[in-house]
Amino acid sequence: MLRQFVRRIHYSQRFYEAQVELTSVRYAGVKRGNYAQLSEKHVQQFERILPKERVLTDPSDVQSYNVDWLRMVRGASQVVLRPKTTEEVSAILQYCNEECLAVCPQGGNTGLVGGSVPVFDEVILSTSLMNNIIGLDELSGVLTCQAGCVLENLETYLSERGFMMPLDLGAKGTCQIGGNVSTNAGGIRLIRYGSLQGSILGVEAVKADGEVIDCLNSLKKDNTGYHLKHLFIGSEGTLGIVTKIAVHCPPSPKAVNVAFLGLEKFEDVLQTFQNARRDLGEILSSCEMMDRLSLDAAVTNLKLKQPIGDFPFYMLIETSGSNGIHDEEKLTSFLDNSLETGVVLDGTVASEPSKIKMFWSLREGVTEGLLQDGYVFKYDISLPHANFYSIVPELQARLSLNQVKRVCGYGHVGDGNLHLNITVPQYDSEVMKIVEPFVFEWTSKLKGSVSAEHGIGFKKTQYIHFSKSQSSLNLMTNIKQLMDPKGILNPYKVLPADH
Amino acid sequence: MLRQFVRRIHYSQRFYEAQVELTSVRYAGVKRGNYAQLSEKHVQQFERILPKERVLTDPSDVQSYNVDWLRMVRGASQVVLRPKTTEEVSAILQYCNEECLAVCPQGGNTGLVGGSVPVFDEVILSTSLMNNIIGLDELSGVLTCQAGCVLENLETYLSERGFMMPLDLGAKGTCQIGGNVSTNAGGIRLIRYGSLQGSILGVEAVKADGEVIDCLNSLKKDNTGYHLKHLFIGSEGTLGIVTKIAVHCPPSPKAVNVAFLGLEKFEDVLQTFQNARRDLGEILSSCEMMDRLSLDAAVTNLKLKQPIGDFPFYMLIETSGSNGIHDEEKLTSFLDNSLETGVVLDGTVASEPSKIKMFWSLREGVTEGLLQDGYVFKYDISLPHANFYSIVPELQARLSLNQVKRVCGYGHVGDGNLHLNITVPQYDSEVMKIVEPFVFEWTSKLKGSVSAEHGIGFKKTQYIHFSKSQSSLNLMTNIKQLMDPKGILNPYKVLPADH
Repeated sequence: MLRQFVRRIHYSQRFYEAQVELTSVRYAGVKRGNYAQLSEKHVQQFERILPKERVLTDPSDVQSYNVDWLRMVRGASQVVLRPKTTEEVSAILQYCNEECLAVCPQGGNTGLVGGSVPVFDEVILSTSLMNNIIGLDELSGVLTCQAGCVLENLETYLSERGFMMPLDLGAKGTCQIGGNVSTNAGGIRLIRYGSLQGSILGVEAVKADGEVIDCLNSLKKDNTGYHLKHLFIGSEGTLGIVTKIAVHCPPSPKAVNVAFLGLEKFEDVLQTFQNARRDLGEILSSCEMMDRLSLDAAVTNLKLKQPIGDFPFYMLIETSGSNGIHDEEKLTSFLDNSLETGVVLDGTVASEPSKIKMFWSLREGVTEGLLQDGYVFKYDISLPHANFYSIVPELQARLSLNQVKRVCGYGHVGDGNLHLNITVPQYDSEVMKIVEPFVFEWTSKLKGSVSAEHGIGFKKTQYIHFSKSQSSLNLMTNIKQLMDPKGILNPYKVLPADH
Repeated sequence: MLRQFVRRIHYSQRFYEAQVELTSVRYAGVKRGNYAQLSEKHVQQFERILPKERVLTDPSDVQSYNVDWLRMVRGASQVVLRPKTTEEVSAILQYCNEECLAVCPQGGNTGLVGGSVPVFDEVILSTSLMNNIIGLDELSGVLTCQAGCVLENLETYLSERGFMMPLDLGAKGTCQIGGNVSTNAGGIRLIRYGSLQGSILGVEAVKADGEVIDCLNSLKKDNTGYHLKHLFIGSEGTLGIVTKIAVHCPPSPKAVNVAFLGLEKFEDVLQTFQNARRDLGEILSSCEMMDRLSLDAAVTNLKLKQPIGDFPFYMLIETSGSNGIHDEEKLTSFLDNSLETGVVLDGTVASEPSKIKMFWSLREGVTEGLLQDGYVFKYDISLPHANFYSIVPELQARLSLNQVKRVCGYGHVGDGNLHLNITVPQYDSEVMKIVEPFVFEWTSKLKGSVSAEHGIGFKKTQYIHFSKSQSSLNLMTNIKQLMDPKGILNPYKVLPADH
């Protein structure tokens, strides 16, 4: 029985590997940097720093670390290191820096831009075993933990103590807080609790040379010198590896409600967002939209149940508050008004946890549902509200259904963040040429962002200039040079190669 | 009549000047950097960059820019430049950098740590005329403006359009948003709307060499590269001069209430904070405390009316919400409970704007009231809640009433931020020796911050190591060196001299 199980895993691993072209082949323009090649000597030193079982070199152990979750990119690393402490991370980096070995830090490997897997043969440093919760100050609501804690585990720990994470996203069961911080992850509660740049109070990180930068402040306010933590929040592991964080956590809400709404036009979606902000005020905790094809990806491909009939647009509106009766009154008034004026055509509300979860599984299942179509061209753009959706019909017109399976848009409409997705049976460079750089040029013309929350990673480095000025890019390059002169940390990511 | 008026001003200016010792005399240990001395040639070039009337060199025009609001420090600058545009700031800095002239950027000059006035003869660059509001996106609530806009003017502009600034502080009538951003100002609404690091979406700043760094993003989400804006938020003008900002503004609340409470013990203050967080939840927008001697500084020295009897402690608790009836119910339930259990001894509630303003004038008047005592030793520290107030009685015991007029504590208890103040008839180096470095050592032992919101400025550079590790200080120094190699921007501030 066990043998059968093992065989099945191996089969599935071979299948998995077969599906994903090596990054160095698909993106042949990317050249390997002048880093050392991994040798037996290096592995021996790693085995001095870490116990042997935390240095993985068996190809069958290593391969899953080389491929990203979307199966878009695949590296060829030969070694995975699994430190448990900051001191171990420091020793590893100090040695890699001395030896000029490139390092790819990896958390839950749920990134969507190829930032968390090697491009060539970088040493993989996995934070998965750095999963200690250090503590919660119940007076101030500040949680301190290691970088490898899985987001959902932190949520569970906090909810038992009357608090919640200010961050929630579909990948919560796998993603790690260190990766969330390193990528400045956004998610579905940003509209209420703001970005991680506001919630993360402190960071401990290790620089390329192994030096530990301790900004692990757990105070809400600390204006003593430059706010170095922000060098690590959102720099995607290229300036340092985040090892610990302190995050300010709001109290758990006493009441949560989710409305699932059907709408006719995108203008109605925008109007409903404005009405929600006005009528729900401080209890509005999510304002999400999906078009019909997005919801269909979750419903058809993942066999989920659709809670209301077919509409061109859907919205998920969540409230979280401290008084269930007040919240219900606010929500009822908002919904009555929305239905009476015809802005919303149909809707259903959940307050029981199981039904709330069901609604959210539809929204959060879109990403995985789209993957079932084959290969996904994913774009995560910020746009002014007035022009939020117009790129979707524009691309539908440019691409024929012979070429693609689906062109759809969904996302965090309250935050002006659209997830534009184009699915094809398999990777297709012709489609790619129609879509890129068109999407980035469109976004840039509207002064949007070519990456709202996913980051730049490996896949978008050549498009960063659509959202950032040359002087800003120069300053970024100077800072990278200052903090990692040999460029060993997560190379080929974030900054374009000509920088 | 006019002449009399002018004479009176001159008299008062002489009086003013007479009261404040030159910083270079009082802090004789500080050595002037190796900068150029201002010459006629420099002034002529400034008069080419700016119209003549915006280059102030008459000593009577310049002197008020040399002295800080607290009258603690005084520089000896001979020139004030008043640019109106980013291009002018850029041209000024480029020239100063070439000539190695030190520059002190100045906003509303309301800082409390001597950061906004020159230490020696630095060129003063005042942002007062950079006061254009560029625009408000009413769909997203994003305000874009120049750095010299006065906070209160922005608040007025926004309130007419249904929005509010996420920041409020006592100096709002004078302080400028560029200064607020440069010092990462905290204030009385941080508990609800978070720090500026979360609210400020974009910054345009000019580097020491005149290069403009345009990170004036007005999107809520933008993960394209390093978040350079944070180099300018809170670095107190030492890495660049902030010229424009984009800030995310919440909608105006429909109902505001303020409760003014009297309490017996500090433990009751803490308990009331916890009860407020529980009962008021998402509508809690301020949670402030004052001890009796703090309130007395406002009541006695500024002749303000005390709304309730004498108590050892007072609290100001503000709610802001979208539904007046719901808010009143929450507040009534919180107050009934607090009075019934005896945690709060007495209280009064205001919902009319004039009465709310009156309550706030007591809290905001403490700073000015204390100044009337003479000289103020001011400390602005973050401490864990459990040890928030204990340093006040400790210092009361260490200092005799022969030496000092008043030792008191007030501040943002919800954020763990205490303002500890010691007043004396005039500056007294003996008192100073008893208080410093004792306060910083105490704070450091409790892992607090030696500057919660005021910043480091000139006055606290030698104490920054109590809150920051050596590796962090080294990295700060490297970044300063990278961005301002000649050290012309706001020298003698933030980083200690030996760095």
